[in-house]
Amino acid sequence: MVSAVAKPDLHPFDPLTAGEIEAAISIVKKAHGDVLFNVVSLHEPRKAEMMKWLQDSANLPKPSRVADVVVIAPGGKVYDGLIDLQDGNITKWELLEGLQPIITMEELQAVEHVCRKDPGVIEQCEISGIPKEDMHKVYCDPWTIGYDERHGNTIRLQQALMYYRPNPDDCQYAYPLDFCPIYDGEKKAIIGIDIPKVRRPLNKAPPINYHPEAIEKAGGYRTNLKPINITQPEGVSFQMKGRQLEWQNWKFHIGFNYREGIVFNDITYNDKGTDRPIFYRLSLSEMVVPYGNPEHPHQRKHAFDLGEYGAGYMTNSLSLGCDCKGSIHYLDAEFPSREGGIRTIKNAVCIHEEDAGILFKHTDFRDESTIVTRARKLVVQQVFTAANYEYAIQWIFHQDGTIQPEIKLTGILNTYAMNPDEDLGGWGTQVYPGVNAQNHQHLFCLRIDANIDGPNNTVFMSDAMPSDAPVGSKENFYGNAFYAKRTKLATTGQAATQYNGDTARTWDISNTNRLHPYSGKPASYKLVSREVPRLMPKEGSLVWKRAGFARNAVHVTKCKPPSPLSSTLDNLVEQQLTTVQQQTATTSCGQPAATFPRLLASHPTASPSGWAMAPSPSTTLTSCSGTRSGVVHFPAPEDFPVMPVEPITLILKPRNFFDNNPVMDVPPSYASTPSQVAANNAGVYDAADKISKLAFGKECCSNGTNGTNGTNGVNGH
Amino acid sequence: MVSAVAKPDLHPFDPLTAGEIEAAISIVKKAHGDVLFNVVSLHEPRKAEMMKWLQDSANLPKPSRVADVVVIAPGGKVYDGLIDLQDGNITKWELLEGLQPIITMEELQAVEHVCRKDPGVIEQCEISGIPKEDMHKVYCDPWTIGYDERHGNTIRLQQALMYYRPNPDDCQYAYPLDFCPIYDGEKKAIIGIDIPKVRRPLNKAPPINYHPEAIEKAGGYRTNLKPINITQPEGVSFQMKGRQLEWQNWKFHIGFNYREGIVFNDITYNDKGTDRPIFYRLSLSEMVVPYGNPEHPHQRKHAFDLGEYGAGYMTNSLSLGCDCKGSIHYLDAEFPSREGGIRTIKNAVCIHEEDAGILFKHTDFRDESTIVTRARKLVVQQVFTAANYEYAIQWIFHQDGTIQPEIKLTGILNTYAMNPDEDLGGWGTQVYPGVNAQNHQHLFCLRIDANIDGPNNTVFMSDAMPSDAPVGSKENFYGNAFYAKRTKLATTGQAATQYNGDTARTWDISNTNRLHPYSGKPASYKLVSREVPRLMPKEGSLVWKRAGFARNAVHVTKCKPPSPLSSTLDNLVEQQLTTVQQQTATTSCGQPAATFPRLLASHPTASPSGWAMAPSPSTTLTSCSGTRSGVVHFPAPEDFPVMPVEPITLILKPRNFFDNNPVMDVPPSYASTPSQVAANNAGVYDAADKISKLAFGKECCSNGTNGTNGTNGVNGH
Repeated sequence: MVSAVAKPDLHPFDPLTAGEIEAAISIVKKAHGDVLFNVVSLHEPRKAEMMKWLQDSANLPKPSRVADVVVIAPGGKVYDGLIDLQDGNITKWELLEGLQPIITMEELQAVEHVCRKDPGVIEQCEISGIPKEDMHKVYCDPWTIGYDERHGNTIRLQQALMYYRPNPDDCQYAYPLDFCPIYDGEKKAIIGIDIPKVRRPLNKAPPINYHPEAIEKAGGYRTNLKPINITQPEGVSFQMKGRQLEWQNWKFHIGFNYREGIVFNDITYNDKGTDRPIFYRLSLSEMVVPYGNPEHPHQRKHAFDLGEYGAGYMTNSLSLGCDCKGSIHYLDAEFPSREGGIRTIKNAVCIHEEDAGILFKHTDFRDESTIVTRARKLVVQQVFTAANYEYAIQWIFHQDGTIQPEIKLTGILNTYAMNPDEDLGGWGTQVYPGVNAQNHQHLFCLRIDANIDGPNNTVFMSDAMPSDAPVGSKENFYGNAFYAKRTKLATTGQAATQYNGDTARTWDISNTNRLHPYSGKPASYKLVSREVPRLMPKEGSLVWKRAGFARNAVHVTKCKPPSPLSSTLDNLVEQQLTTVQQQTATTSCGQPAATFPRLLASHPTASPSGWAMAPSPSTTLTSCSGTRSGVVHFPAPEDFPVMPVEPITLILKPRNFFDNNPVMDVPPSYASTPSQVAANNAGVYDAADKISKLAFGKECCSNGTNGTNGTNGVNGH
Repeated sequence: MVSAVAKPDLHPFDPLTAGEIEAAISIVKKAHGDVLFNVVSLHEPRKAEMMKWLQDSANLPKPSRVADVVVIAPGGKVYDGLIDLQDGNITKWELLEGLQPIITMEELQAVEHVCRKDPGVIEQCEISGIPKEDMHKVYCDPWTIGYDERHGNTIRLQQALMYYRPNPDDCQYAYPLDFCPIYDGEKKAIIGIDIPKVRRPLNKAPPINYHPEAIEKAGGYRTNLKPINITQPEGVSFQMKGRQLEWQNWKFHIGFNYREGIVFNDITYNDKGTDRPIFYRLSLSEMVVPYGNPEHPHQRKHAFDLGEYGAGYMTNSLSLGCDCKGSIHYLDAEFPSREGGIRTIKNAVCIHEEDAGILFKHTDFRDESTIVTRARKLVVQQVFTAANYEYAIQWIFHQDGTIQPEIKLTGILNTYAMNPDEDLGGWGTQVYPGVNAQNHQHLFCLRIDANIDGPNNTVFMSDAMPSDAPVGSKENFYGNAFYAKRTKLATTGQAATQYNGDTARTWDISNTNRLHPYSGKPASYKLVSREVPRLMPKEGSLVWKRAGFARNAVHVTKCKPPSPLSSTLDNLVEQQLTTVQQQTATTSCGQPAATFPRLLASHPTASPSGWAMAPSPSTTLTSCSGTRSGVVHFPAPEDFPVMPVEPITLILKPRNFFDNNPVMDVPPSYASTPSQVAANNAGVYDAADKISKLAFGKECCSNGTNGTNGTNGVNGH
């Protein structure tokens, strides 16, 4: 069975193809009979091997294609295996005890149907005011249970957040129900229902909907939006070779897995002919959405959307002309179905360019000689739906070497029932009559495996600080002196850092062996992350224990080979740094996400998303860092019944990396020099967009200005 | 001379027309002879009068057109006057002592020519290595002197930052000179030269340029950017009536003055048929750029670009197809020349729409029924050049009621000479051989005169806070409780607030008399300002004294009528709140910028940009608030010789203002309901952009996906 499956033209970072997934499934079925497939995903090649191969891919043999497989066998037994796709051998097959792997879409889909038939649920619906015969109008958003002390960590559980729809097209989030069934995935049954002491009957408010029929009834769509057409008549400016993209000096590989969704590998920037490595791997590796209502069982609402459900598994199939405009390239995603088939998500990733306004501009005030150059950005995007919410993950690449991960939050608020005039105690807001939207946070963990001119990188925290010398002193007579205080993060203790807005704190990921010829400072990428509220759940709380990554703004860890999966509590403290690498990043510096099944119902201290602070000093930390950023969301009626996009952004920016401005060779729209201005603009560079037009033509203006129409006659220069 | 000048069709907020400026000048000349015109600008109608008129403009008489005039008479005497343009009367004519009005472009232009002929400057140039005959290659950027204890505050001074150009087209910032002449604007002469103890001869490095000839020599422009065309075949979606704009429920007036540049007045949003007032006035009212090098005379580099030079006076003439794309509307600006003529800046303001990505999206995970709606934004922009730097001020209006002021920094670093291997002491960076770019901040002051459903507004500081109750307590058993702690800013002391990133601090401008029918919370606009480094110059320093506004992140003041200009120190503390209103905002809640001449060479404690903390409690503060935001800039070689754009942004967002999501009536790109999905998508709403295309057509993809080409055949939904 040698190389029966693995295609020679695949890049080692390419996700498994449908054929490879099928092959892995068939090998497992042959060896282990009928099992349910939770994960069949690329086992990413080890970093050390890949780093070597990337440097000499023409001569070195390609790293093997290996499938990471997680299955649930009869009796709920979880196995984690590795399948070598070259020779068809199962190289690892390990029983995992006390761990539950990720919840799949099929498992989520199942709960609602079981709920509708469960006598206990039917009874509770009746108490809420829903007659038996209307059970088809009852819906639920199943969430993992996180941790509930009553159930321990050996059962595969979901909690069913209950809703009602008067009509199948109505927004259910206006009709939350007040009880919460607990679903056992192994038994496929409801094993309990959490019922609040204070009951809150079904909301009586009229439906509120955003679908076209509802809008038409309410007066119709606005008709005053004229089209904005974006066209790329000569096509796009990027090239794709398989999943390797090349654009404006950037080169990188776009992977995709069930858990993190988009993964970038081997990000380089061509600097005057040399591809300089910047990041070995870059991904959104975890997030948590804790809700702030203290009443049981709301504390269980703190979704780890990546670790518990998977940003890949939940990703949307995108659509041309809807999610982005212009000329779009799509990548599909292929996953196993639970029964061992193939689930394809068409257009899971979209890639396109956008005009990005002014790139740089300067005018000499003496003579108005000027240059103005427009910017372009490349966006690699996925959108995933986590039950009620949507997250549009945009990875924005700028021409100047900046990478800007931007997350746009939209979708629908998670809601809970409330009685008329109920005091929400400050934990939520009535966004619609009878609808309580609870305070919550969205905290994201970006995992950065840096490779700035090579793998030996150091991270510094940089704070803007006034000089220590007092006003009037010789060193600081006028009191204006300030500098960048750089703190090397040398130990894991130091490396767990918070944000400081006062000092405009940033973090420099540096190659201290590569000093800039002019500045003498190390080649660096600066991480700018300013949206970093603290984790609101208190120290020692359930969420605090589970969401280790969210305790710090930026945590740097050392890259080292993965150690065995440690799930017991005894070695957790000692292994914390390792745990961080395993759990948060889903990889230990290049190890694949699929290796480690998620801890769904585990003991709360077994952080499913580590990134916790390690207590003991370590050696100098190198390249792996995780950064938390996020928003605190106090809902308001404007967010309901569907929320206008709220963006959150981060910046990774080259500093002392390039000799000078790396985008001076981007063709300007217009450039004139002083000598050209002196010669009546003879010889000026004029590539101004001739397609842009005056909004109202020449007759527009009451004061008779804007005398020229159409193209570039306006005396702007 | 009744109404000889004022046109009846002008809006009271319209800037003075060229005709009005000419009339005012002629009236002044007739009465006071030959004077130099510093300011001739609209004296904005008093807020109280205007508020009344705005509510019943059909019946009430229009407020008068009044010109605010500042002139410099022979002997350097400064007069501040008001001219009623209806009757031609001079209603005020006041001698200002110890104050210097704004520096005009003509005054800035003059210095270089005087420097080139000054024997002292010629001598210093020779010491630097520039022969006498090359004085035409010597340039300077004149800055106001700010404050220099040796010269007091009665002389109109500029400092000349000196540069050299080997060739007229070379970037002078690679050749800074080490001495600094002081220019007396009244004498038109150099009255002194600051010479450092350590001399730094002319830089010997080769020129570094970004003009086309230099790029061609270095290998030419990149040729791999394919065009992105943005067209609006049916025109724009906004209407202009004079300078009043209407777009997507927004209505506002766009003013423009010499100091603040763009000023918005009477911003309203049409909520289901009612124009609800939101802001009476909104502008960027001041900024300061302190440099962090403690050596004399660098402490004088802390430009108040608005108060000292004017964002209006320095504004660029914009150009179609360069500064924005699509269908653009321009507004011109008209100012007096110093001698009493008219200086017109064509296309001083550009207005255009942009596609803004996803507005909202939701997919039901059960059946993939979905809605996706695209957003549109309106951008009102100006770009001004402050010697070396450029600031693109974008006022972005979103459909959902959000206003987002965004400032894009570009242009060229201010540079200073350095010797080879000179230790810059952490105060600067060698960005090019022999070129020291000093640490600096850019701190901006946004002035918000709120009018949320009327003028009686209150400001609350809002902090996300964990519950006080400990983990395990009855009230917070699981430790997850958190809430928005709202602090009413009731006194001027409380109203001087800092940022707190940890609590994701925001500020709510609220109308406490207008409670939301569902949430019970007051109609509010939330100010989100996260880029708020502290003012780096220390307490008690020159900059700290002068840049009062920059000491706090947000300072709220009460709106009250203007009090007489107070320039003496004695009443400064008592008058601080008043001073804030006068100086920072340049207006006291609606009073025009032109009323108050700038303090150029005044005593340092006479803050030219107030917004200082007032020590004594006041009554409940209402609607005027100023917010500082900005960046700390530690230069890097990537910023040189011209800096790629660095953006800074703020958000003003409606909360508990609208009944629910106000953009549900924006036509979606695509919408399907569960019942339509069940009926094989019969009747779905499909308005997807049919112009967007696949990047590589159907043959693109190695794995055979993306099977459909061109328009919306891809199975995205």
